[in-house]
Amino acid sequence: MDLHILDHRLRVTSISKTGLVHFTHPLIKLIFLRNRSRCKFLSLTETPENYTVVLDEEGFKELQPSEHLQVEGSTWLTLNVVSNGNASSSSQAVGVTKIAKSVIAPLAEQNVSVFMLSTYQTDFILVREKDLSVVIHTLQEEFNIYREVGGESVPIHQQDTQNGLQKNGKDVVKATVHPVLIPENQFCVMSLDPDTLPAIATTLIDVLFYSNSLKEEPHPSEDIQCVKFFSFSLIDGYISLVMDTEAQRRFPADLLFTSSSGELWRMVRIGGQPLGFDECGIVAQISQPLADSDISAYYISTFSFDHALVPEEDIVTVTDMLLKQRKDPAC
Amino acid sequence: MDLHILDHRLRVTSISKTGLVHFTHPLIKLIFLRNRSRCKFLSLTETPENYTVVLDEEGFKELQPSEHLQVEGSTWLTLNVVSNGNASSSSQAVGVTKIAKSVIAPLAEQNVSVFMLSTYQTDFILVREKDLSVVIHTLQEEFNIYREVGGESVPIHQQDTQNGLQKNGKDVVKATVHPVLIPENQFCVMSLDPDTLPAIATTLIDVLFYSNSLKEEPHPSEDIQCVKFFSFSLIDGYISLVMDTEAQRRFPADLLFTSSSGELWRMVRIGGQPLGFDECGIVAQISQPLADSDISAYYISTFSFDHALVPEEDIVTVTDMLLKQRKDPAC
Repeated sequence: MDLHILDHRLRVTSISKTGLVHFTHPLIKLIFLRNRSRCKFLSLTETPENYTVVLDEEGFKELQPSEHLQVEGSTWLTLNVVSNGNASSSSQAVGVTKIAKSVIAPLAEQNVSVFMLSTYQTDFILVREKDLSVVIHTLQEEFNIYREVGGESVPIHQQDTQNGLQKNGKDVVKATVHPVLIPENQFCVMSLDPDTLPAIATTLIDVLFYSNSLKEEPHPSEDIQCVKFFSFSLIDGYISLVMDTEAQRRFPADLLFTSSSGELWRMVRIGGQPLGFDECGIVAQISQPLADSDISAYYISTFSFDHALVPEEDIVTVTDMLLKQRKDPAC
Repeated sequence: MDLHILDHRLRVTSISKTGLVHFTHPLIKLIFLRNRSRCKFLSLTETPENYTVVLDEEGFKELQPSEHLQVEGSTWLTLNVVSNGNASSSSQAVGVTKIAKSVIAPLAEQNVSVFMLSTYQTDFILVREKDLSVVIHTLQEEFNIYREVGGESVPIHQQDTQNGLQKNGKDVVKATVHPVLIPENQFCVMSLDPDTLPAIATTLIDVLFYSNSLKEEPHPSEDIQCVKFFSFSLIDGYISLVMDTEAQRRFPADLLFTSSSGELWRMVRIGGQPLGFDECGIVAQISQPLADSDISAYYISTFSFDHALVPEEDIVTVTDMLLKQRKDPAC
């Protein structure tokens, strides 16, 4: 299989809930007015805590520094696995499950933090630029590695990297087993022809920028079984949307499409306290057992928590598996 | 004829060019998300100096105080002339020309400041709330006057107003004759079915909120023959747009409509220095001679200047007339 290190240099940021109004102007530009910006990578995810915005340097320079904007200090690079058809796989699973053993687990073993962004089209594995030589060294046995430079894919040869290698830390640290939350919303992973984006502009603007301004009745605390989660990404011209069925009903049914109609997903939110960016192995901890059971999963990291989406029909299996893991972390 | 005093209580504000980014969130809400606000009167006009925003109290409370926001101190009420078909008029003219002699001139003679907002649908005459008794007294000979209260039109009888009357100042002040500028752009006055507003949302957002961010080549000063002017209003559910033909080309041709296709207008901008809000008779000075010649005119006041739009085929006549007026203000 091929692994591409994409051309994007990304920043991972967070905008506070109350601060979003101050970023409406640049974000609407980045989402809807492609002629006005050279940004090629934008991902915006609303969670109950904040808005996670991952974007390339062209996009990042549109965001004015502000008390409402938190910026993770690193530059992140994007890895993308391209199945070149040679590997015969018996797995029908999609998402991180396909790369759990080949990418996620080896990087965790080398103490490389990853920030995952699954989309409708593919799964992006973000790693810190400073970890790149470790990443290449770790994955070059399994993959043909290419670095995209100005639209060209340049192969990276083994000898290019061995000198610069330094392992991240000495020992493999066993990851903490984090609490999980399994809300009751059902999610869809959808896409949209970029040419029809203007047709859903007002609805998307409403959902993204104004959904908190409605004075909704607060749920009694025992009823908070649904979790706010809405993700939009526009990456290299491809649009991906992750939303729950309640949000989906607000969009015209004929414009958004999903890979098989009616496919619904349930969420596992990972983390009791915000996870930070330095702990390694969080994605591996979830994706490995899913891979063992050949269960598809999308995985979306945000500034505070990680989120796995698994098929609705598998949620009981996954819940049991996660409960066992939490009772006996050695499993 | 009937004169209606509408239910709106309006504020006249100005947002600086550089400050618009801070008001993108509330303005997009007011323009596109009608379910999120109870604002029923919104007019937004871009000129080279600033953005003039006229809106009712429901809309005004969406605008946070800011160094970028100037607010005229008064509450303004809206007058609207309703032709009830009884008056036989030989005039084919539209716009302020029709009300120049019956409304504009008498109010100027009583030293009442007016702020005019012509739209595709009708002409709104804004007067300060404190001037209302003078306005009623001045216009009740010519009009049946109704005050709209909660959707009902309540007739105002002559005896209701005579006690409260106080004339604005003692003498009629002859208005200053202001310099005029006649830019070369051709303008259209258009409308749009409110249900199709979402279809032009991204274009309208681009034109309204991002047209200054393009690094356009500055014109050499001798070439500034076109003046930036774009006006959008959403009043009681009716949309009106005034834009030059260059902006018009950016919109889909099948959604915007004008009363007769290809009808183009030229602009007369009134004022060398910002006009302020206290001088009376400015509208009268322009609209009276137009009425004498039965030339149609839209008239749009903004925070700094006034703007009359006259049919392209009449611009030579109007220019001559204005030149004469400026050489010999007694005309």
